[in-house]
Amino acid sequence: MNGSGTIRTRVADATASPFTNKGAFSVSEIRVTVWHEFRHEKRTEAVRAVYPDGIHMTIAAGLQEHGFTNVRTATLDEPEHGLTEEVLAQTDVLTWWGHMAHREVDDAIVERVAQRVLEGMGLIVLHSGHFSKIFRRLMGTTCSLRWREAGENERMWVVSPGHPIVQGLGPYIDVPHAEMYGEHFDIPAPDELVFISWFKGGEVFRSGCCFHRGHGKIFYFRPGHETYPIYYQPEIRQVIANAARWAAPVRAFEYPYHLSGRAINVKEPLELLGEPQL
Amino acid sequence: MNGSGTIRTRVADATASPFTNKGAFSVSEIRVTVWHEFRHEKRTEAVRAVYPDGIHMTIAAGLQEHGFTNVRTATLDEPEHGLTEEVLAQTDVLTWWGHMAHREVDDAIVERVAQRVLEGMGLIVLHSGHFSKIFRRLMGTTCSLRWREAGENERMWVVSPGHPIVQGLGPYIDVPHAEMYGEHFDIPAPDELVFISWFKGGEVFRSGCCFHRGHGKIFYFRPGHETYPIYYQPEIRQVIANAARWAAPVRAFEYPYHLSGRAINVKEPLELLGEPQL
Amino acid sequence: MNGSGTIRTRVADATASPFTNKGAFSVSEIRVTVWHEFRHEKRTEAVRAVYPDGIHMTIAAGLQEHGFTNVRTATLDEPEHGLTEEVLAQTDVLTWWGHMAHREVDDAIVERVAQRVLEGMGLIVLHSGHFSKIFRRLMGTTCSLRWREAGENERMWVVSPGHPIVQGLGPYIDVPHAEMYGEHFDIPAPDELVFISWFKGGEVFRSGCCFHRGHGKIFYFRPGHETYPIYYQPEIRQVIANAARWAAPVRAFEYPYHLSGRAINVKEPLELLGEPQL
Amino acid sequence: MNGSGTIRTRVADATASPFTNKGAFSVSEIRVTVWHEFRHEKRTEAVRAVYPDGIHMTIAAGLQEHGFTNVRTATLDEPEHGLTEEVLAQTDVLTWWGHMAHREVDDAIVERVAQRVLEGMGLIVLHSGHFSKIFRRLMGTTCSLRWREAGENERMWVVSPGHPIVQGLGPYIDVPHAEMYGEHFDIPAPDELVFISWFKGGEVFRSGCCFHRGHGKIFYFRPGHETYPIYYQPEIRQVIANAARWAAPVRAFEYPYHLSGRAINVKEPLELLGEPQL
Repeated sequence: MNGSGTIRTRVADATASPFTNKGAFSVSEIRVTVWHEFRHEKRTEAVRAVYPDGIHMTIAAGLQEHGFTNVRTATLDEPEHGLTEEVLAQTDVLTWWGHMAHREVDDAIVERVAQRVLEGMGLIVLHSGHFSKIFRRLMGTTCSLRWREAGENERMWVVSPGHPIVQGLGPYIDVPHAEMYGEHFDIPAPDELVFISWFKGGEVFRSGCCFHRGHGKIFYFRPGHETYPIYYQPEIRQVIANAARWAAPVRAFEYPYHLSGRAINVKEPLELLGEPQL
Repeated sequence: MNGSGTIRTRVADATASPFTNKGAFSVSEIRVTVWHEFRHEKRTEAVRAVYPDGIHMTIAAGLQEHGFTNVRTATLDEPEHGLTEEVLAQTDVLTWWGHMAHREVDDAIVERVAQRVLEGMGLIVLHSGHFSKIFRRLMGTTCSLRWREAGENERMWVVSPGHPIVQGLGPYIDVPHAEMYGEHFDIPAPDELVFISWFKGGEVFRSGCCFHRGHGKIFYFRPGHETYPIYYQPEIRQVIANAARWAAPVRAFEYPYHLSGRAINVKEPLELLGEPQL
Repeated sequence: MNGSGTIRTRVADATASPFTNKGAFSVSEIRVTVWHEFRHEKRTEAVRAVYPDGIHMTIAAGLQEHGFTNVRTATLDEPEHGLTEEVLAQTDVLTWWGHMAHREVDDAIVERVAQRVLEGMGLIVLHSGHFSKIFRRLMGTTCSLRWREAGENERMWVVSPGHPIVQGLGPYIDVPHAEMYGEHFDIPAPDELVFISWFKGGEVFRSGCCFHRGHGKIFYFRPGHETYPIYYQPEIRQVIANAARWAAPVRAFEYPYHLSGRAINVKEPLELLGEPQL
Repeated sequence: MNGSGTIRTRVADATASPFTNKGAFSVSEIRVTVWHEFRHEKRTEAVRAVYPDGIHMTIAAGLQEHGFTNVRTATLDEPEHGLTEEVLAQTDVLTWWGHMAHREVDDAIVERVAQRVLEGMGLIVLHSGHFSKIFRRLMGTTCSLRWREAGENERMWVVSPGHPIVQGLGPYIDVPHAEMYGEHFDIPAPDELVFISWFKGGEVFRSGCCFHRGHGKIFYFRPGHETYPIYYQPEIRQVIANAARWAAPVRAFEYPYHLSGRAINVKEPLELLGEPQL
């Protein structure tokens, strides 16, 4: 792809793409993979009580409720964590929830996912996923924060009211019981800041953050503790559905780079240079 | 809307909205008004030769080619410049081309359009529209620049490859003959920078710029001189169609403010304050 | 300046400039004008009790405490509101506090101040100054917000810890009694977001916001109600001093534009164009 | 630092800090370490001819010319690449030039430097340093680009005229002979875009880019090929000096996180929570 030095001007074939310029743009054409650690449920009754089939199944159900018909799941303990080359090649948007086993995610799989994001695959990182290898890989910072588990209430304010991720929402979302996350949230400044959260105990947090990396789009969304029924909440489901639509790849020229690769040597200039200068 | 002090939590009725969460999101449902000064064509043969029916008709044809079926036009010399309260209330995206008669646009109409943008109407400002009253009103700067008319070639590079406005494009767009616009382009830093142009004569220019104002989205797009057939060029039509889809309003809570209005006094806190403190 | 078409490459004379590359950069060389409406104090005993000489004198004292020796004041009721061409020409940073008489600020003076900001003069807008003509002029939005006067406490969190405006601060600033300002704060997305405030009653607010307009820098800083002694608070004084240093003009090429002016026609290209093309 | 759950409100001791609020802010107090790969010079006569003592010595001389008196150098082949814990603890700003031996930089040293940047140390990445491990680590993308070595001329336009990094400059900088770097430059969108370059052969490039990571500030500056005398050019030296001043750490609360560490559990809320909720 890179070695020849020519610009790849080949544009995605419009007929093959579900994302055409004309006519309908349908959520049913966006292929989502919901990735989940799926460990808490197996160990803790309190979590099973809220998410009997696993958090991933609840998130997937929420997407299906919003018209996404191409939703699959993948979990940590599957071979290759369910994220084979084939699965990732057929994934338009990947959601990620992890908490107690970030270290067990294989580094090679992380690189594979990172490369796919740079190629255009969307990534939605949920709650404790702020500490996932993939999110830290793409941010370059610790992604650390302050936290407290006291069941206090949270209020998520919209600060970007024209953003597609807030479609269908009011000025704020009430979360009756939440685990507090507080600033300073050690991330790069979001390209687009969508939500800011208020916590009863006195903290604030940038709880809805958009980032662009390569051709891909990433949305970090804070709510989602394993012992609270947050992923059943209608507004939370609305946001995740909106985010999946926002993060879906744009069909344009192919991403020309590779994490392990080289720069592109363009020997032939696009304009005449005249006499060789040096 | 504002005086009562309560938060308007009423969310746009999903059934009435064309922008539903489920199913298709169709460009045919986006209502576009193409506004044009329409003076050059009437005065100058060279312009009529390129745009016999007016630049606005060519832009509208480009949108229709891309599936927009709800396109109307409006021009400076119509009553209220064709931008009555009724027309604007039924406009989701307004495109704007003006050059030699910016001063003739009525200030009250400019305020009316500005209020609609803040309420969520999209605005696409084209070429010499950088000096329009409406664009300067929303930017707060002079929007001035350097320019030269020598028919030199332009190359517009994509610098935001995951952005929906670049759907269907390659790494750059060639414009064979253009009027040069050069930095420093006196605008606020774009919220999203999509294109950077190269000119044969030595200048560069931020030629595709996204801004958010209130609930509205604005896209400034540089190409488009009146004596060059740029609005017939397929890639240019692609960008304008993509921009119209990007700029369409998001259906969420209503914009609660007014340019001539007041702040919202929220007498009742959302949380208990305890003993009155002062 | 503009008409000749040549690029002004004259760079500010280093010897004349206080902002030299070598040696000391001293706050004593930054000329600050503290502008104040100065009406509340004259009408209301409760305000005089807190600010007997006027809010402007307290702000000026804070700056002097931080090493600024070139501080003057100006008020609404002076001729030309104290903002003559001469005063503005000798002002590096202008601070602005107004509340009940924004409408009385003369439009021509507003344009004069706006032009100076675009030329490089810094502007610090305080508290209710969010509704000042000058701030709304430079933002292009209503700058409206939600508010409540209940004396509740505020906590201002730092979210940009590497920013010069947070020098000398801890992770947050406590304001024991404040007038609440809440989102949605109708401003463009700040170029740099420095503080986010938490209010007891349930709201959040982007309370420290940086904007760039032309060659100038603007800092909006929320705290500062007329009946609370906020401008005596050490951390608040620290922020205002830091902001004045941040907002001071950079000595580089002169701002080439004018709010009432034209674009710059550059007839001679910087590179050879070859055969005239059209 | 982290385990106790209390907020570190200890603020840097003003008397110990060179960056005081009052009086002079002097570049002579900023401690710069100029890091260089220093391999080309040893292998290639053409490089030695331009930089007989090594690129690092030329960059250091440029800084000293601009009043920096605390400048040291470090090179790849020194023990720990000259970047011991002690050296880094005493470095306020690190500049980085590498090209043919990025892979030889020890991963543990890269992590050490990354941690220091997050703690507040400034980082200036020059030219081919775009592919350094440290820059890629902090960006999360490939940082790849298109390139051509034909000695064509470059013109670097200022697009952020109020930015301290452009102090002392005109509207653009001419570089008579350069190695072309062209878009798409695979970096996150810069927090502040300062320069855009034009190349004779038809490309553009975002050549001066600011990023914030943790408490640190990073400036990527494109010019600087090993066979062109770019680091002797006055405007280039001006930019590097300005960038070193801009990137110097801000003295505020200590960075509380660690790349290998945990989040901060704040058991005691800052506000009363009332009855335990869950």
